Amino acid sequence: MQEKLQELKRHLLEISDLSSAYAVLNWDQSTYMPPQGATYRSRQQALLVRLAQERAVNPAIGRLLDDLRPHEESLPYEHDDAALIRVARRNYELAIKVPPAFVGRLVEHAGNTYVAWTQARPANDFKGIAPMLEKTLDLSREYAQHFPHDHLADPLIDQSDFGMKTEDIRRIFAELRRELVPIVQAISDQEPLDDSVLRRHYPKQPQLDFAYELAKAFGYDPQRGRLDLTAHPFMTKFSPGDVRITARVKEDDLGDALFSVLHEAGHALYELGIDTAYDGTPLNGGTSAGVHESQSRLWENVVGRSRGFWEHTYGDLQKVFPDQLGDVPLDVFYRAINKVQPSLIRTDADEVTYNLHVMIRFDLELDLLDGKLSIRDLPEAWHSRYQSDLGVRAPSDVDGALQDVHWYGGVIGGAFQGYTLGNIISLQFYEAALKANPHIPTEIAQGKFDTLRTWLTENVYSHGSKFTTADLLERVTGGPLTIAPYIRYLRSKYGELYSLPN
Amino acid sequence: MQEKLQELKRHLLEISDLSSAYAVLNWDQSTYMPPQGATYRSRQQALLVRLAQERAVNPAIGRLLDDLRPHEESLPYEHDDAALIRVARRNYELAIKVPPAFVGRLVEHAGNTYVAWTQARPANDFKGIAPMLEKTLDLSREYAQHFPHDHLADPLIDQSDFGMKTEDIRRIFAELRRELVPIVQAISDQEPLDDSVLRRHYPKQPQLDFAYELAKAFGYDPQRGRLDLTAHPFMTKFSPGDVRITARVKEDDLGDALFSVLHEAGHALYELGIDTAYDGTPLNGGTSAGVHESQSRLWENVVGRSRGFWEHTYGDLQKVFPDQLGDVPLDVFYRAINKVQPSLIRTDADEVTYNLHVMIRFDLELDLLDGKLSIRDLPEAWHSRYQSDLGVRAPSDVDGALQDVHWYGGVIGGAFQGYTLGNIISLQFYEAALKANPHIPTEIAQGKFDTLRTWLTENVYSHGSKFTTADLLERVTGGPLTIAPYIRYLRSKYGELYSLPN
Repeated sequence: MQEKLQELKRHLLEISDLSSAYAVLNWDQSTYMPPQGATYRSRQQALLVRLAQERAVNPAIGRLLDDLRPHEESLPYEHDDAALIRVARRNYELAIKVPPAFVGRLVEHAGNTYVAWTQARPANDFKGIAPMLEKTLDLSREYAQHFPHDHLADPLIDQSDFGMKTEDIRRIFAELRRELVPIVQAISDQEPLDDSVLRRHYPKQPQLDFAYELAKAFGYDPQRGRLDLTAHPFMTKFSPGDVRITARVKEDDLGDALFSVLHEAGHALYELGIDTAYDGTPLNGGTSAGVHESQSRLWENVVGRSRGFWEHTYGDLQKVFPDQLGDVPLDVFYRAINKVQPSLIRTDADEVTYNLHVMIRFDLELDLLDGKLSIRDLPEAWHSRYQSDLGVRAPSDVDGALQDVHWYGGVIGGAFQGYTLGNIISLQFYEAALKANPHIPTEIAQGKFDTLRTWLTENVYSHGSKFTTADLLERVTGGPLTIAPYIRYLRSKYGELYSLPN
Repeated sequence: MQEKLQELKRHLLEISDLSSAYAVLNWDQSTYMPPQGATYRSRQQALLVRLAQERAVNPAIGRLLDDLRPHEESLPYEHDDAALIRVARRNYELAIKVPPAFVGRLVEHAGNTYVAWTQARPANDFKGIAPMLEKTLDLSREYAQHFPHDHLADPLIDQSDFGMKTEDIRRIFAELRRELVPIVQAISDQEPLDDSVLRRHYPKQPQLDFAYELAKAFGYDPQRGRLDLTAHPFMTKFSPGDVRITARVKEDDLGDALFSVLHEAGHALYELGIDTAYDGTPLNGGTSAGVHESQSRLWENVVGRSRGFWEHTYGDLQKVFPDQLGDVPLDVFYRAINKVQPSLIRTDADEVTYNLHVMIRFDLELDLLDGKLSIRDLPEAWHSRYQSDLGVRAPSDVDGALQDVHWYGGVIGGAFQGYTLGNIISLQFYEAALKANPHIPTEIAQGKFDTLRTWLTENVYSHGSKFTTADLLERVTGGPLTIAPYIRYLRSKYGELYSLPN
């Protein structure tokens, strides 16, 4: 049995290393690649993807998984070997259900559509790209049809948030919406907080240096990572010894680089905390988009935008920017970074309104998949939902239906729910951490993060993909997904900044 | 036939793209990879090497090459298709002669020995690494035995300088030696030139910026390349649209970054000048170590250390370093960058003594392969040759037998001759270029390089690996390799700086 397991691991290692090599090429493309390298690079990336896919559907893996079933069933659910076989089987069965030729078409179309989007968005040309997006919708539907489902979106959601159903998410989002709308409404009726101090002139390098220092204070290890500049911030993992983050920096927006670095550092802490014994296996990665986002949002928002954190940190920031912040009291700064205001751009949205952006996209995805909405009518549906949900309307499709890359570089369906699941889960985990270690907020206010990070590593990070989102929630909180902790958090934090209804 | 050719090209493209992906991982390892990424990265690189090797010996390629033989023979030698089939066949036959398991052992041993060398060199521990080097020597001999040869070194030389025989190189080196020794002797008897102006304090960034500007003036295109810092400078190609160079910079040595950037830019101009139609085929690379080095040395030395070049450029350099060079006349600077002095380090050697360093290594390689010299006695043999040939002796093995990476990261044999062949060839090509365009030196003295680069592109670069070194020399100069132009050049240039014997 051990021999079969070793053989399975050899297959999985090759898939893992090919994916890592792909990730390096991808990182390089986003950071340092000269412009003329682009077309050749896409071809090289496509080869690595194809080689990994070929290996992922190798029938030898199927046979090994069959042979290993008795071994798996003889072990407890949480045994590493059982988890490895379980997750490898899940991936294998997912991979073989879709014909390789179809995957090829999908990947190629996604690549072409992404390139077209990079031109269509600045040109505000939704009409031009609409035929490609129609094909994406067709392909997304066709993809989903290969899998059993209650709703067509289920298999697409499964890709990033395994085990979550469309109906579950609809229900949770409806609950959350009922809570959020009156809060947003109440805040919108009040005098807006002043965040103009963030718009002063902040030179780039000190911003980046300061943000990187904070990431390192959280526990991000420069021996196992680095920070580079890209158009859109991201985290990427090449191995347990190499988990990188990227940032974007604006001289007239202090919050942009600062909080995106803390966000990506949160993702990185998760990946760096995974048991290194899982290296080269499908357990060596965060378990779902929702849990991953729970960690980026926890470190960015729950820690990084908390009053306690800045009580300790603000003096250091003032020393870096004495001309810009020397005359700005902590409270003014704290209010500025927590200003709530309905806006157009998801990634710039505050903690309270952010989820409304996600819900709009989630609903539009379902309507598109259901055939209730056509691609042609998507831009207007977008505007009308922003008008009704947030009271704002983008001047064009640039910040409307063309805003996010997701639909233009992948499939339509399952792309966005993880962001809001992450917000919800972050507070479930944080409350559990506080229950175990009530002094965590005190430590944060002293610039110490070890207790929190160690608790998260033990209870969440180290497990990698061993447990599903639902498993983790059950183990950590003793129950299923629930919005209560998140709502408690929003009400407590923003109740102090604004007058909120009961 | 066209279908078979397309099929062959598909096979070759995959090998090429896997090698390019490997090169990206390698570049990243040398530039930006965090320290803890190292072990995992080696494993990922080994996978890509193995996948490329597996494809290189695919019997389907052999069958296609057989089927395509009539097509090849129906075409003129210089037809692109004929060249493609010819070079693909050469590579295939080279690859299949060596059992894959042996290649695996060789690559693994080379990797381990390289890592050991990175520790042994700073520790001056030749004894510690000697057993590994003995194994390298055994493996090098075993490797060579797989190929027909007059001398064991022939197959090893073939790897980098296809078509050159040990005896040819011995003869050429002996001729060159006869010319060089009296020149070096005469110069050594004279008052040394003063190069102390190069040792003033030069901040790093302006050095790099200035060197990069010169590379761009030569024709290096930042849309298709970039400059980064590494411990040892190199050029690497990922595609016709992405050819990168690296540099090292020292604040107390103005020449180091400057001339190594021009050197690597020369390599890059060669690669960037190759017909883009050869992309993805084995024609898409410089044809040999010797011709490649001819281009790095041509741009670094023949152009970059010429008086005319600095007549135009020196004023700009003075503007960048007014405190360091404002009081230094052009002639003093020119003499400093062309100072001849027997020394210990090959890569720092001047144009005249450089080849003596190469010949020592070449002779030692032959003696090792012939069994006339044991690894145990290598350090003393090194010292004794340096004493007799250059009149200097390294204080330890750090700058002796441990100096160059080549033997510690590959095989013993064929590693060094290309450097001196390059020096010789650079002047054969340059004389041919001057014959066709006598105004090239005038243009260089005006900071213009288009005529020279265009001529080199048309006559050398564009052909990639289509022609062998001997083919190129015949086409460009109408004859074989000859040291006469190189000796004329050295005598003319250094006869002006020193008093030389007739």
